[in-house]
Amino acid sequence: MSTVLSRDSQVRVMEDTVTQAEKHFGQLCSLLAAYTRKTARLRDKADQLVRQLVDFANTEHPEMRATLRSLAEDLARVQDYRQAEVERLERKVIDPLKLYGAQIKQTRAEIKKCKRVRNNEIKQLERLEKLRQKSPSDRPTLSQAETSVQRASVDANRTTHQLEETIDTFQKQKLKDLQKIFSDFVTIEMVFHAKAVEVYSSTFQTLERYDLERDLEDFRAKMQGVYGRYNARPLTNTTASPAVPWSLAQSAQSTIRSQRKEAVSEEDSAEEEEGPVEDFQGTGAPSITRVGG
Amino acid sequence: MSTVLSRDSQVRVMEDTVTQAEKHFGQLCSLLAAYTRKTARLRDKADQLVRQLVDFANTEHPEMRATLRSLAEDLARVQDYRQAEVERLERKVIDPLKLYGAQIKQTRAEIKKCKRVRNNEIKQLERLEKLRQKSPSDRPTLSQAETSVQRASVDANRTTHQLEETIDTFQKQKLKDLQKIFSDFVTIEMVFHAKAVEVYSSTFQTLERYDLERDLEDFRAKMQGVYGRYNARPLTNTTASPAVPWSLAQSAQSTIRSQRKEAVSEEDSAEEEEGPVEDFQGTGAPSITRVGG
Repeated sequence: MSTVLSRDSQVRVMEDTVTQAEKHFGQLCSLLAAYTRKTARLRDKADQLVRQLVDFANTEHPEMRATLRSLAEDLARVQDYRQAEVERLERKVIDPLKLYGAQIKQTRAEIKKCKRVRNNEIKQLERLEKLRQKSPSDRPTLSQAETSVQRASVDANRTTHQLEETIDTFQKQKLKDLQKIFSDFVTIEMVFHAKAVEVYSSTFQTLERYDLERDLEDFRAKMQGVYGRYNARPLTNTTASPAVPWSLAQSAQSTIRSQRKEAVSEEDSAEEEEGPVEDFQGTGAPSITRVGG
Repeated sequence: MSTVLSRDSQVRVMEDTVTQAEKHFGQLCSLLAAYTRKTARLRDKADQLVRQLVDFANTEHPEMRATLRSLAEDLARVQDYRQAEVERLERKVIDPLKLYGAQIKQTRAEIKKCKRVRNNEIKQLERLEKLRQKSPSDRPTLSQAETSVQRASVDANRTTHQLEETIDTFQKQKLKDLQKIFSDFVTIEMVFHAKAVEVYSSTFQTLERYDLERDLEDFRAKMQGVYGRYNARPLTNTTASPAVPWSLAQSAQSTIRSQRKEAVSEEDSAEEEEGPVEDFQGTGAPSITRVGG
């Protein structure tokens, strides 16, 4: 029975090879699909960030606006590369792994067939054994049973041999595909990361070139336009309104002048900005403040 | 009232500056935090893939085992860099953006204070106006009211001036921080991607070096060890069992030989692998097969 036993372990090793492949390819497939999905989620989030940066850019002055827009464009380009990464992972990594389902099913069917043929051999051997013990002298029946054993044995050998070839081809293809799939995975990732480095290097330079002072000048100019204080010029669309409230200009101003004396008289009181209360009091009664201080 | 009006639009522009900053920094903060979380999810998934690859490696022959382990190690290294990316994004991008909450709150409080002081000025002006119309000759009361207006006006100017400085500082800091935060973001991303390129380049070479033939030889040797068919050597741990089943070796073998004649007699029938049923039948009755064919 050692051939039968040997064939038994043989089939078991084959089954094991296919089962391991099925298990690991299946797990790899679902993990790599999940990895790809997470990459797609990251791309989505970065796309939101791009839109947010464009919105933000539109509320800023030209310098920062251009910088933020450029940053948004670069970030969008990286997401385009990430999208290409996702598509390539699906096509060159996940799809080939999925195909293994069919391939494994087919190999499993061949193993099953081999087991069936092998079981028939055992059955024929057992039948012959029984006949030999029951009717050892019945040559025609024994001879027929021996022929059946022979046929079953040849059948089993042939099927096992075919299976060996199938498993050999399966294993060879599996190893080749593993190498190919992971080489593709690594290449896809590498290309994406290299593109990202390229884009971000240029983004970094854009950010370095950002002119803060120019932007601040724009901001201050806008504020001055609204304040109207640096050159005491009236607000746009306000027809020749004086820089002081009309009530003060009419009567209160004289009162103020009479109280603030020469310290105030040199400047436009309503637009006064260098004269806080302390200064005002100090000008009015310097000795008191100093004594009290 | 033009100064009051001007101050009004001034405060509105300031409020707008702070509101825009609050809105956009808030959105950027939550989006970048989400981006970082998605990156962390991708890292987690890749970590699972690493464990899966190690498991898989352990079921493979030495060549593929070493290749898969090396791939797993490299993938793990990329995740270490991704982890560093996540930590740096949190520390240098998200935390500074979060700090804006406090900064904006403080600036808002100053704007509120400014508005309160400004409202007091308007109240004093209105009071003076009423007094002027009610009792235009009551000089002491009018004078006192004028002084109150003057004080309120100086107060408002001072506060507005302080606010201008605060907003200027706020804007300057905001622009500086934007440049800094995004430069840091881009640098962190760039460093991560560059490291990934570095690691994957080496991984790619490892995969290229993989020796499929050597691995297949190991697989075939294992299969041979189990088959015991290439040299008809007995299975390990099977003490001198013949390569044919004991029953066949005892009696059936002679029967087989008598039936299969010379075609079979030259080989060990039970370990026969080059003689499928067709060949066997063909040897027995070549003409019938050929005529039938």
